[in-house]
Amino acid sequence: MTALQSFDARTGQPIDPPVGHPLLATTPEQLDAIAQAAAAAAPIWAASDGAVRARLLDALATALEAQREELVALADAETGLGPARLQGELDRTAFQLRRFGRMAQDGVPFRHVDDPAVAGAAPVGHPAMLRVRVPLGPVAMFAASNFPFAFSVLGGDTAAALAAGCPVVVKAHNGHLLLADRVFALIQAVLKAQGLPAGLIGLVQGEGNAIGTQLIRHPAIAAGAFTGSTRGGAALQAEASARPRPIPFYGELGSVNPVIALPHALRAKGAELAATLAGSITLGSGQFCTSPGVIVLLDDPASDAFVQQLTTALVAQQPHAMLTPGLRQAFDAGVGRWTQAGVQPLLLEAADAAQPPRPVLVQVDAARFIGTPQLHDEVFGPASLIVRAHSVAEAVQVLQALGGSLTVTLWGADEESADAQALVRAAMQMAGRVLFAGVPTGVAVTAAQQHGGPWPASTQPLTTSVGDAALDRFLRPVALQDMPAWLAARAGRPV
Amino acid sequence: MTALQSFDARTGQPIDPPVGHPLLATTPEQLDAIAQAAAAAAPIWAASDGAVRARLLDALATALEAQREELVALADAETGLGPARLQGELDRTAFQLRRFGRMAQDGVPFRHVDDPAVAGAAPVGHPAMLRVRVPLGPVAMFAASNFPFAFSVLGGDTAAALAAGCPVVVKAHNGHLLLADRVFALIQAVLKAQGLPAGLIGLVQGEGNAIGTQLIRHPAIAAGAFTGSTRGGAALQAEASARPRPIPFYGELGSVNPVIALPHALRAKGAELAATLAGSITLGSGQFCTSPGVIVLLDDPASDAFVQQLTTALVAQQPHAMLTPGLRQAFDAGVGRWTQAGVQPLLLEAADAAQPPRPVLVQVDAARFIGTPQLHDEVFGPASLIVRAHSVAEAVQVLQALGGSLTVTLWGADEESADAQALVRAAMQMAGRVLFAGVPTGVAVTAAQQHGGPWPASTQPLTTSVGDAALDRFLRPVALQDMPAWLAARAGRPV
Repeated sequence: MTALQSFDARTGQPIDPPVGHPLLATTPEQLDAIAQAAAAAAPIWAASDGAVRARLLDALATALEAQREELVALADAETGLGPARLQGELDRTAFQLRRFGRMAQDGVPFRHVDDPAVAGAAPVGHPAMLRVRVPLGPVAMFAASNFPFAFSVLGGDTAAALAAGCPVVVKAHNGHLLLADRVFALIQAVLKAQGLPAGLIGLVQGEGNAIGTQLIRHPAIAAGAFTGSTRGGAALQAEASARPRPIPFYGELGSVNPVIALPHALRAKGAELAATLAGSITLGSGQFCTSPGVIVLLDDPASDAFVQQLTTALVAQQPHAMLTPGLRQAFDAGVGRWTQAGVQPLLLEAADAAQPPRPVLVQVDAARFIGTPQLHDEVFGPASLIVRAHSVAEAVQVLQALGGSLTVTLWGADEESADAQALVRAAMQMAGRVLFAGVPTGVAVTAAQQHGGPWPASTQPLTTSVGDAALDRFLRPVALQDMPAWLAARAGRPV
Repeated sequence: MTALQSFDARTGQPIDPPVGHPLLATTPEQLDAIAQAAAAAAPIWAASDGAVRARLLDALATALEAQREELVALADAETGLGPARLQGELDRTAFQLRRFGRMAQDGVPFRHVDDPAVAGAAPVGHPAMLRVRVPLGPVAMFAASNFPFAFSVLGGDTAAALAAGCPVVVKAHNGHLLLADRVFALIQAVLKAQGLPAGLIGLVQGEGNAIGTQLIRHPAIAAGAFTGSTRGGAALQAEASARPRPIPFYGELGSVNPVIALPHALRAKGAELAATLAGSITLGSGQFCTSPGVIVLLDDPASDAFVQQLTTALVAQQPHAMLTPGLRQAFDAGVGRWTQAGVQPLLLEAADAAQPPRPVLVQVDAARFIGTPQLHDEVFGPASLIVRAHSVAEAVQVLQALGGSLTVTLWGADEESADAQALVRAAMQMAGRVLFAGVPTGVAVTAAQQHGGPWPASTQPLTTSVGDAALDRFLRPVALQDMPAWLAARAGRPV
């Protein structure tokens, strides 16, 4: 039995687990039993109706809220994200659990296409067909470091999978092990109270990559869902593809979230936009997948003024400690790669690894940016790279060089013009979400949301990990041809 | 310049290309130019409206029909599939071109989710969002050997991609190069007549894997679509994933299409079912992805009688020559693997490689089948493997051992029972289409169709390569947040 250790994100000091309840790494035998229990729960849960799914999701939301104070305090100690942010994140987590519950209750997973027989010869004639969707089976869910509630044990992937009719086995993130353990205890109590199989939601934990690899390779696992680094996601994607039976893998990975600010927008309200952008760059110490990492400015006095305004606004920001020492090291190394690539430092204070990071702002010419692939990688933390373009055409080339991102933000595309059209086209070609106001941090859980995009934003750019369409990832279409009356009477509900 | 050679499928003799129009392998430089031309056409075609797309698809269908006699004669010489089948396949091809045209005209690619702003704090409050879909860009389409029209140059993937707003670069199949060339000439004439970019539809050809690898790796290619062998599809999937920027790859691969025949169904009409099944096994010389390769029978005198009936019905079948000598060799080798694995031969005549193949029927016990993975692989050709199960539970285990298939056919599940439920559940868990009557060959192009399933049936089991939902593979969702009035006025139409 390998003991695991939780740490205080601010002090680096160990946090002890509750007395008599040590944090132990899941053994291979335990993981196998947990995956088998999920597989045993799969047909039961697949056959549940929407009301049963909604009742579970509602109860999980209520249980989270009932333990709000302790959970937020624990999350704050383990992540350093601060109580206000974590209260909001818990609210969002409860909201999305209930929202997916409503979708199940409203019958979204059971929607079907009824396609009656057409008499006559093919291709016009065809047999009776009903297109339904079946839950994939147990989903391996990999918790994220930076959202201890909303992308963790009871996060959006878990809510969507449960609403779709799939059991979940969560790989806890090592950055918040005690919180994961506490949330899992809450889940077990709810499952027991509702008479549902304990195996419907499992939790595994361990150091290094072995536990995650064992989980995604397990024959009982039918899909993977991951939020995290490009490297980690690519490794798990490769494992999912290398299985004797490859399975769908939904990885939400890195993103630089370019912001393109046209001069007339900056002339109108540059100071206000600079303050907003500085807040977005440093929010959560820059540890958001939607953090704006590239700011594209055109040659114009308004852009020069904006650089000054943004630098000044960033100096005033006080980012908190990063989630883990490893993320902090990666941040410092990423900034180091920028400087090695010859960018111009605008705000770059000497890093004291014992203190929270300071905001970083650097600048580079668009031609150099386009020709320097190492500048296209995400630097996860409170840092942003200004890219100076000589024309809208060159700004478009910057987007094309990046190739994929969760978001692109366009400031100054309010009026139709050839420039606005070119930028909108390029942005839509490489991002899952295009914003025309505000900043990309803050992702609404809503019907039209799209949180995903071409590589490296996502391994499956046609899907989303946030918003109502997240449910679709866990349901596979099946066409029932010439089905008997007893099956037709179920109208798409599982057998 | 490497000359390519077409062959008569029946005689193995070379077929000369038209005088002055040699068949030449596409050079790497030519492929690059073709892919670049597709990329240049992409924004133009993405901005086209549904009427323009429908006009092209309709004209392509009409052009196919106008050259029906020559095209069918050429296809028949190169594939040996016979004029009747090829006439029907051309009808289907024209039908699906027009059907996707109607979908474009009806606005399917432009459908959107309008999600107005909700005032108040998150998570309830959110900005205005519009969820639209954008065409992925140029699609690399790999033609299949066994459908020279319907899964080839102007096949379903091409129709769906064009309707979605994507250019297509087709890799011709070496089994029908002259037909591909002739169809491509027809396409070029239609594109010219409609004033559309010649690069909207490209064609490449060559021996070996190099040309396909170069195509799927090309930076201008945004997605791949493939119909063919598991090995070929897996290799291309690996190439698509190994790109600096991985892209979606839709591979429709191998499938054994189990048929489970319960005794009461066989008692009622065994002779009729045996005749139907024998026809399905040998249809097109068994060269269908939906060909029934595994027949599961329970211990019962009706099953024994059915084995006799099926054997007798198969003896009377006269499969035609296979598409290529390579497919014939693979068929003989696959049957050889069966016999090496110790199956009982029921119908197994000595193979004369110079003659068309004879139908093959072998039998094995379910326990042995389940424990022998090499029996789970598809044998492409007029052969089927009877699996004798002692119980419905064991029949379920057979399906679970297979894991993935395009189809499962259940004869005798007409009345609700625990057995019927267990079989339906297991079938839905591992197949994209479940049939309750008839045979799996013959796939309707219709609204509810699902032609895909868990590995090895498909690399993307949530998608389909046949039916209306095939369109969805080539459109990526994008959320537009706080969009300006000029963009809102387009209501989801491309910029």
